[in-house]
Amino acid sequence: MNRQQLIETIRRKKSFLCVGLDTDLAKIPQHLLEADDPIFEFNKAIIDATAQYAIAFKPNLAFYECYGVSGWLAFEKTVDYIKTNYSDTMVIADAKRGDIGNTSKMYAKCFFEQSKVDALTVAPYMGEDSITPFLGYDSRWVVVLGLTSNKGSHDFQLITDANGTPLFETIMRKVASWGTPDNIMFVVGATQGKMFEQIRQIVPDHFLLVPGVGAQGGSLEEVARYGLTTDCGLIVNSSRGIIYASDGTDFPQAAAEKAREIQSEMQKILNDKKII
Amino acid sequence: MNRQQLIETIRRKKSFLCVGLDTDLAKIPQHLLEADDPIFEFNKAIIDATAQYAIAFKPNLAFYECYGVSGWLAFEKTVDYIKTNYSDTMVIADAKRGDIGNTSKMYAKCFFEQSKVDALTVAPYMGEDSITPFLGYDSRWVVVLGLTSNKGSHDFQLITDANGTPLFETIMRKVASWGTPDNIMFVVGATQGKMFEQIRQIVPDHFLLVPGVGAQGGSLEEVARYGLTTDCGLIVNSSRGIIYASDGTDFPQAAAEKAREIQSEMQKILNDKKII
Repeated sequence: MNRQQLIETIRRKKSFLCVGLDTDLAKIPQHLLEADDPIFEFNKAIIDATAQYAIAFKPNLAFYECYGVSGWLAFEKTVDYIKTNYSDTMVIADAKRGDIGNTSKMYAKCFFEQSKVDALTVAPYMGEDSITPFLGYDSRWVVVLGLTSNKGSHDFQLITDANGTPLFETIMRKVASWGTPDNIMFVVGATQGKMFEQIRQIVPDHFLLVPGVGAQGGSLEEVARYGLTTDCGLIVNSSRGIIYASDGTDFPQAAAEKAREIQSEMQKILNDKKII
Repeated sequence: MNRQQLIETIRRKKSFLCVGLDTDLAKIPQHLLEADDPIFEFNKAIIDATAQYAIAFKPNLAFYECYGVSGWLAFEKTVDYIKTNYSDTMVIADAKRGDIGNTSKMYAKCFFEQSKVDALTVAPYMGEDSITPFLGYDSRWVVVLGLTSNKGSHDFQLITDANGTPLFETIMRKVASWGTPDNIMFVVGATQGKMFEQIRQIVPDHFLLVPGVGAQGGSLEEVARYGLTTDCGLIVNSSRGIIYASDGTDFPQAAAEKAREIQSEMQKILNDKKII
C-alpha cells in the first residue's frame, strides 16, 4: 500500500485507527480454545468486527512466535485473511527486527516476499545497513523506532549529545535521510504527549505509528493536537483496549463498539482539522 | 547452560568457537534441495561435523523466518537436535529481539520455554523493561547488542554525550547493572579490534559474543589479545567461513576442517594465556 492509498483509506473510513493483534491464548475467550486454530479464529472475528473502523491491523510477532510453528501459521493465515478480504487495510508486522546488512535483507525477504505485509517495525541501533535493505520494495514501509511508549524509553532514547540533541532526534533525522516519507514511518509512543510538537519539527511529513493509547495511558487528543499533518500523518494503535473488551462470546461486538468509539473521536478530530 | 558449565565446555573442547547457522537455500549444496527439509539436513551435517570443535551454535532467525512455517520448523528441529545430541554445547538464538515489557515477556516465553535455547540476542534501544523479562530464567542468557560488527555501528553507537562517553558504553554499563555476568552477555564485533581494551574496562567479567571474524574481516588474534579474561570470556562466531567452505557433497568435511583450523588457533591462544 503506497502513501496515496493510505491517505485515501484514512479519508474514506474517517479514521486513523490501527487495531493491534496481540493475541494471547491466556486472554482470549475460553470457548475459542476448542477451535483448531484459536489464534486465527479470534483474529478473524476481531478483523471482521473492526475492519470498518480501522485503517490498519498490527499483529505483534512475539504473540505468534511464542507458540512456535503453530503461531507462525496463525500469523500467516491472519495476514492472508486481511489482504484477501480487506485489501484497502494496511498490515503492519510489529516485529522490531534489525541486523547487519545481509541478515536484514533476509528479514525483508521474510516479511515483504514470504508474508506480504505492508510494513514492518525495525529497531535502529545497528545503523544504516540494518535499515536500507527494507527500502527497496515498492509500496512497502519500514517503521523505525523513534521515541517509544514504554518506561524504558527514558533509559537511552533521551540521552543528549554534546550539542544537547537527544538520541532519538539524531536517529530520526539520520534515518529519514536514508529514504523518503513514502517508505519510512517512525514509532512515537502516545505516552510522549507534548514531545509530538518537537517530533513534527524533525519529521514534518512522515507518518507516525503511535502505540500507547489505551492500556498504556496515552491521550489521543494530545497526540492529535501536536502530531497531525494535512495528510493526517498518524496511525494510532490500540490493542488490549479493543481486542479484550469482553472475554465472553460477545467479544466481536464489544471490540467493534470500542473501535467505533475511537473512530468517532478520530472522525471529529479529522473534521475539526479539515482533513476530511 | 550456566556460566560454570560454559567454562567447563570451553576448557574441555579447548575452544571458544561458535558456529553460526545462517543457512540459506541459495548457498547450500544443491543436492540437498531434494531432501524433505533441506535446511535441517544441512544443519545436521554441519553440527555433526563441527560439534567437537565448537562450544556453541548460533542459528540466525532471519534465515529461518524467511521461509515461514517450514523455516520455523527447521529452526525448532535444529535446536532439538543440538540439545539432544550435544547437550554440553550452547545454542544461541540470534534474533535481536526487544520490545515493551509485556511483549518482551512473550519473546522470553518463545525462546526460553517453547524452543529451549540457552541464549537470545536482544537490542537495547527500548531500555530496561525490554530486557529484564529475559533475566528471570535459570541458566539462560540474554545477549545484548553493545558495539556491533557492521558499518552501520558507527551511525549511532559511537555518539558521545556531553561527558564524552559513547552511547555503547552508557548502554553496556546500564544493562550490566540490571543483571549479572551469570545471565547477561554482550555482542561486540570482531571488527572493532582495539576497542576490546576499552570494553574490558566497562565489563571486565562478562562473556562477549563476537561476530565478524572471517567474512566480515575481524582478527581473532586481536580480539583475543584485548578481550580474553581468566575465564576466557569470549565466544567467537564464524558463520559463512565455516558452513559454506564447500558447496559440494564434501561440505561437512570442509566445514570440519575450517572449524578445526580455528579451534587449533584458539587452543594455542588459551594455552599461551594459561586459561587451559
